[in-house]
This record gives sequence, structure tokens and C-alpha cells, in this order.
Amino acid sequence: MLELVDLDKRLDKEVYRETFPALEDELGKCQRAARAAGVPVLIVFEGWDAAGKGTIINRLTQVLDPRGFRVHPISAPTEAERLHPWMWRFWNALPPAGNFAIFDRSWYGRVLTERIEGTVSKRKWQEAYDEIQEFERQLTDAGVVIVKFWLHIDKKEQKKRFKQLEKTPATAWKVGKEEWVHHCKYDKWLEAVEEMIQQTDTACAPWTIVEATQGRFRRVKVFETIIQAVQAELDRRAAQPPPVLKPMPEPVESPTREQTILDRLDLSLSLEREEYEEQLDAVQKRLFRLEHELYVARVPAVIVYEGADAGGKGGNIKRLTRGLDPRGYEVVPVGPPNAIEKSRQYLWRFWRDMPKAGHITIFDRSWYGRVLVERVEGFCTEDEWKRAYREINEMERQLADFGTVIVKFWLQIDRDEQLARFEARQNEAAKQWKITDEDWRNREKWKQYNTAIVDMLTKTSTTYAPWTILEANCKLYARIKALRTVADALESAVEKA
Amino acid sequence: MLELVDLDKRLDKEVYRETFPALEDELGKCQRAARAAGVPVLIVFEGWDAAGKGTIINRLTQVLDPRGFRVHPISAPTEAERLHPWMWRFWNALPPAGNFAIFDRSWYGRVLTERIEGTVSKRKWQEAYDEIQEFERQLTDAGVVIVKFWLHIDKKEQKKRFKQLEKTPATAWKVGKEEWVHHCKYDKWLEAVEEMIQQTDTACAPWTIVEATQGRFRRVKVFETIIQAVQAELDRRAAQPPPVLKPMPEPVESPTREQTILDRLDLSLSLEREEYEEQLDAVQKRLFRLEHELYVARVPAVIVYEGADAGGKGGNIKRLTRGLDPRGYEVVPVGPPNAIEKSRQYLWRFWRDMPKAGHITIFDRSWYGRVLVERVEGFCTEDEWKRAYREINEMERQLADFGTVIVKFWLQIDRDEQLARFEARQNEAAKQWKITDEDWRNREKWKQYNTAIVDMLTKTSTTYAPWTILEANCKLYARIKALRTVADALESAVEKA
Repeated sequence: MLELVDLDKRLDKEVYRETFPALEDELGKCQRAARAAGVPVLIVFEGWDAAGKGTIINRLTQVLDPRGFRVHPISAPTEAERLHPWMWRFWNALPPAGNFAIFDRSWYGRVLTERIEGTVSKRKWQEAYDEIQEFERQLTDAGVVIVKFWLHIDKKEQKKRFKQLEKTPATAWKVGKEEWVHHCKYDKWLEAVEEMIQQTDTACAPWTIVEATQGRFRRVKVFETIIQAVQAELDRRAAQPPPVLKPMPEPVESPTREQTILDRLDLSLSLEREEYEEQLDAVQKRLFRLEHELYVARVPAVIVYEGADAGGKGGNIKRLTRGLDPRGYEVVPVGPPNAIEKSRQYLWRFWRDMPKAGHITIFDRSWYGRVLVERVEGFCTEDEWKRAYREINEMERQLADFGTVIVKFWLQIDRDEQLARFEARQNEAAKQWKITDEDWRNREKWKQYNTAIVDMLTKTSTTYAPWTILEANCKLYARIKALRTVADALESAVEKA
Repeated sequence: MLELVDLDKRLDKEVYRETFPALEDELGKCQRAARAAGVPVLIVFEGWDAAGKGTIINRLTQVLDPRGFRVHPISAPTEAERLHPWMWRFWNALPPAGNFAIFDRSWYGRVLTERIEGTVSKRKWQEAYDEIQEFERQLTDAGVVIVKFWLHIDKKEQKKRFKQLEKTPATAWKVGKEEWVHHCKYDKWLEAVEEMIQQTDTACAPWTIVEATQGRFRRVKVFETIIQAVQAELDRRAAQPPPVLKPMPEPVESPTREQTILDRLDLSLSLEREEYEEQLDAVQKRLFRLEHELYVARVPAVIVYEGADAGGKGGNIKRLTRGLDPRGYEVVPVGPPNAIEKSRQYLWRFWRDMPKAGHITIFDRSWYGRVLVERVEGFCTEDEWKRAYREINEMERQLADFGTVIVKFWLQIDRDEQLARFEARQNEAAKQWKITDEDWRNREKWKQYNTAIVDMLTKTSTTYAPWTILEANCKLYARIKALRTVADALESAVEKA
């Protein structure tokens, strides 16, 4: 496919002088329009060594308003990055709404350098294609513009440029042993590049192959492409009707909606205090031991707590962590997103908090807010919560592929028990702060929540990240069940590791 | 000094039962009050191995609302951390207003472990005392509560605990070779601990020595101390009159205020286009070479641009970066702080963006906003901008001690030139976005700004971080002067490195 690229393409000085200054102005305007409309833009530069990535990026940064972009030079992952799923660092680098992020090399390193140098297994770099597609689709669905460039030169041209660079001391360092090794493997690289483009040239994030032999041609094509891509998104947004945000209506009664998984639970399951104390002590000791074994085996773990208000999440988490070494775990409480979090795809903030290998992160509420409160209250559009199931499953599968243990709890209580707990909180001075008007309001939407919960449990319980429902009318029972579930999951992961 | 600590201190079970549950409630209340009042709290746990740091931290986290605290276990710095001044990672860990940050070991590692293990030079760990004092004072001045605990046990007790821990497989890993080496050097450690406490036991951030032999005693004392410290800050804030924020009045005319350093500048200095092109090319080539040499020598550089509106900062920065490799530098544009930045000490966001060794960070506006716009417009209190000179000098000295090259530019134009540029911007369609009502308003405060600028230049030009004033009526002249100044500074740093 790349053999058909016409590498002799050139622009006359005259044509260039007529075109390029206007493009520079245009790009500046484009950036300001993107900023005003809150469009984030990801620009990826991949290409042969010495194809001119650095030069073109520099040229772009001359034109762009520095308040609105950031350049990310990507080289081998750092120690901290290697302790996370490989996509983690790219999630962390996402620009906020209205900003540009320019990548000098990118997540494609996985299927190029890392593949060819053999630093990842074949299974891993093949998996990467899926993960890349998921990443790019999740972002473009959220309104991010992704522009990807492959800067193409042929082997002869590369050699010529290497020799040129080697002549001057100021540039000679750019051509090291590594670059010459790459050069010798040009054909092997070519094969990888072609496969990469075939696998990841999607409608939402297409590749642009740039005939990079001549600087003038390269510059005009890159500038043009960016302007068109950003403009297309601006046009799309302008043409779109304003998003409809409405709360979920009360579900229509129907015999097909009765007897859900929640109705089938035996909420009378309970445990006596004495029995509880004994079992708690045993399982906490087990967890303490496992925390250390997990650390030694470098296995990360994610534990998610979701549940009805007053379902007992907080108390349950406290029992889970009581015996643990604080250096090995972290509790991440999740509230409504702040301004910085809102200006990125909604999973961004959860990626950021994912544990490094050997550590445990406990989420007190989580990304499931999207398909629970946000759906019920109409804080996001129908499209957004509907595609969230898939996005969540993809994220969890990526974590699981990295070896992460995932345990998810839903704490279920019945309406009467909730009422009793709300009233108890209201009547006890030391606990009053725990109950707010919002809790009472949520309670009125019990039916809507029930529907949302059942959908969530059904659509996101997977082999790699199953839900465990805790019958939580008896707190003691729910705690022991939770702690044992965690212990079992950790134990089995440590054994496999 | 520590030999006088009574390590036999104990609490009866009965006294403990009467006291501790109330303290737990109290701490919960305290945390909610701190949250409501926006008080950030730093809690530091230092102490002998096996003195019970982990246990007490775990106990604290059981009581605190997880939405309001974070535990920071501190061990040896990572690679990324070693490429920054050593305090950088602690600046990054600052809690936002209303939150707790709990440190399991801390910045005191520098004068304890690192000192004793000899991983830093004597000069470095002695310097650290100053830096620690500066850090803690800067934070407490900004309303942060700092509570520091030294958990004390004697050598015999430590040995007993090590033996105990070694008995059970679940805890044996806690006592490794390192811990036994520490144990053997107990006396050497003791000397370091005493010196540390003497040097850093300040009124704003005092040490609390905890007799840590008995768990009950330890717990009660730690809880009590935290509650009192937070309460004291809450009381202080409640008693304080509301802060007065008022814009700076127009300075009174006085012969002592005439002929400032700004009046003595020769703003007619200029350069012809042809000469400029030639010199620009030469200095850009030099800069390109130096960027690489800086990288090889692992020297970081900070370049600050401040100047009048329309002074030409943007164009100057573009010429500086045009020839550079984008992997080696970053331009950080500085605007008003966002909500997350406002909730921390004002230098926090600048620390976060400091370059790693071998890299260049160019600040387009900077921390000097505190003593310029914030002072003139009354965005901060008089106390705040008055102490900022010292805080800024301290920060820059810490950077310089780490080997950072610091270049600071003030771009000066006269009032007529500014007016001409404002009008030109207004009249040219492509540049209209560059001029706002705010620019016109600022212009009316020319005299106030002049006073603020002269104060700033005088108080913060230091041997390690001198200001360079650019006569900027002629943009070409200012650019060449700036680029040469940077090149000279980098060159001299590379030579010394």
C-alpha cells in the first residue's frame, strides 16, 4: 500500500508562498474557534526517523497560541508507567476541552518500535490494535478530534538524511546506533507500518499519509489536514441540535419487568454479632497476608463499591481496610466531577486513579455513576449513558488484560430498611451530617434506580469483572461476604501469578 | 534530649475506654469543620522502624471521611522525582483546601535515612534544613496546619518488636536486612533525630514526640494533638477579621520616586531588519546546539517572561523556540489560577510545572503575577503580596541549588508605544482577538504598575536568578537581546556542569 505513495510530490516556491501564510492564519483562527466551542484536538505524528516530525511540530507550535496546546514527546515508558496498563499514560495526557495535544510519537509505539524490538510479546501487540481502536473511538464519541499523520520517506531518502545530519556536530547526535538499526530493518518496519495503518485507519480517526520528501509540501499538507478536521467537528457541532438532558421517567409497570434479579435476593440473610466478630478477625488476617502477597507478585487490584444510599458502603470499606497496611491500598471516594474532570472524557479521572501493579484501589462509588445517577437524573444524554456500558466493559477488560483483579459490589437493601436507617441518622446528632435532602430525593426515585441497577448489573457483569451482590439488610452479613469475596479473588490471582 | 522522654507512659484500659471513643467522634467533627472552613491539614509520621506508624495511620483512616484525606507513603524517590529538586514531590502532594494529607515518612527522609545511608552529601542534607523550614513556613503562612509526629521507642523495645514480627510469616517481611542495619545504628540515628528536631521544631510547625511503647497511649496522644492543632487554626480563622482586598491606590508623587530604574532605560535602542535576520540566525543555531548540550549535561533551565501588555512576549518566545527541538522545552502560559490551583498555596502550580533535569521550561507570565497584577488589582491581601518576595526568592534559590539555570525577562515599552500597538491590534482583523477591555483598563493603572514593577525588580533580582530588562520599543532589538541572554546563561551553565 505504501509503495503507491508518490514520494516525488513537491510544491513550487511560488505556490507555497501563495498558500502557506493563509493556512497559518487559518490554523490560528481554527484554534480559537476550537477553544470557544470546547473541542479538544489530538494530533499524532508518527513516521520514519528523520522524516521531519520535530520540524513540523515546531512549526505548528509557532503558529498555535501557547495557552492552548501541549507537546508530548513519547519515548520508552518510565518505571511508574510500566506499573500500569500501557494505555494509562496516554489517558493521563488527554487535553481538556478546547485544547490541543500534539504527540511526537504516540500509543502506536506499541505496534511499531516495541513490536519490532521485541519488547512486548506478539499476543500483547496484537491485543493493542483493539485497545487503540477502543481508545480512539471512546474519545471521538466524546467529541475529541483525532488527526494522525504518518510521515513517509523511502529508504534511500532516509539514508541521505542520516548522512546529512551526521555531517554537523549540532545534529549528529540525532543519528545514533538505534537509528541505523531501524534503517537496516526498513522493510520489516514497512510491514509493521502497513499493518498498523490497515488495522487502525477508522472513520472516526483516519490516518493521513504525508509524502514527506519536501518540507514545503509536508507543511502545507499537515496544516490543511488539521484545519479540515477541526472545521469538520465545528460544523458537526453547529449543525447538531442542542443535547436533550432529561431525567428518567418512572418505568411503566409490566409483568416482564417484575421479578428482577434484585427481587430474587434473600435479604433476610444475617449473621449474629459473635459469629461475625470471629469470622471478621479470620478474614482480616487473611487479607493482611494477601495484601503483601499481592505486592510481591505485582498484581494490581480494583475494588468497586456501589449501592443504595445508606446501604453501608462506608462501614464495609472500613472493615476491609482496617487490617491492611496503608502503603498498599488507597480508597478513592467518587463524587460529582469537578470542572477539570468535566472537560475530558468521563473515564479520564478513573484511569488516572487506577492502581499500580501490586497495589489495591478501592473506589467508593465509581464510573458506574454514569449509568446510575447520571442516567436517572438526566445529567448526561441518552447516547452517553447508552454507550457507557460498552466503554466500561472495554476499560475493565483492558485492566484485566494487564492482570488486574476486579471485584465489584452492589449493596442492596430494601425500602423499609433504608427508611429506618435514614431516620436513625436524622435522630442521632453525630450522624446527622451523613444524611442530606438529596438522599431523600433519590429515595423517591426507587423504581427508576431499580431499572438502572438491573440494566447495569446485566450489561456489565463479565467473566473478567463480575458483580457480586451483597444482601445488605444485615450489615454484618454484608461485610463478611464482601471481605471473603475480596480475599478469594486476591488469593486466586496470587496463585495464578 | 530524647533520653528524657518517658517511654514507660501508659494508659489504663479504663481511662482509655473513657477517653478514646470521644476523641474519635471529635476528630470526625474536626475534619468536617476543617472541610467547611477550607483548612488543609498535613500530618507527618516519622519514627523508629516498628514504632507503629502504619498502625496509627490505619486507625486514623478508619475515623476520617475517605472523601477528605489521602495517605502518602514515602519511600526512595522515583526516577522522575530524582530529576527534579528533591522538595518537588512534596509540593506535588499538597492537599487542597479542606483536605488532609497523611505522610507515612516524609521530606524528613532527607535528613534521616538519606543522611545516614550517605545517599546525599553532607552539604545537601544540611541545606535541607533551610529548605524544610521554608517549605513549612510558606505553607503555614497560607493557612495550612502541619502536625508532625516522632514515634519514639528505645533500642531494646525495637529489638523486641522485630523479634515478635519475625515470628509470624504474615509480618516477617516487615523486618528485612535494612531494618536490622537501622537497628544496629540506633545511636547514629538518635543523633540525627535529635538534630532534626532541634533544627525544625518551629512555632508554625512544631514536633510532637510520642511515647510509642504502648498502643493505647500512642493513639490517644496522636488523636488529641491533631484535634488541638486543627481546632487552633479554626479558632484563629474565626477570630480573624475578614481579609481586606483592595486595589492599589495611585502612588503619591514624590521626588524620591522619580527616576526609577525604568526611567533610566534607553528605549530607543533598536536594530535594523537585515542585521536582525543575520544575528537571529546565528543565535538560534547556538541555542539549538545548547539545548542538546543542556540535555546531555542534565541541567534544567527556567526562563520567565514578564512584561507590559503588548510588550512583545509572545513574539519573543516564538523566536526563542523556533529552532529548538520540541522534546527539550515546554512553554507554560500562565493565566489566572483555576479552582484547583486556588485551593493550594499559590506557588504550588508553578512547582508542578518546573522542568526536569536537562529540560527547559519557558513561563509566559509566571509567579510574579502575585506582586504585579494581584497586588495592583487587590486580588490578594497586603500580607500575601508582601511576603511573596521572600517566598519567590526562596523558591528560586532552591531551584538554583538543584543546578537550575534561571533567566528572567522584563519587557519594557513606553506608554506611546503601547498605545500604538493596541491601536494596531484593534485595527487589524487577524489580531483583534489579542486585545481585550482588560488591556485598556490595565493601561490606566500605568503608575501603579510602575511602582509594582520597580519593587519587584529590586526585591527579586538575585545572584542566582537575576532579572534582565529588555528595552522592547524595538521588537527586533528585544528579541536578539533575549535570545543572547538565554544562550549565554545556558552556555555558562553547561561549561560549569
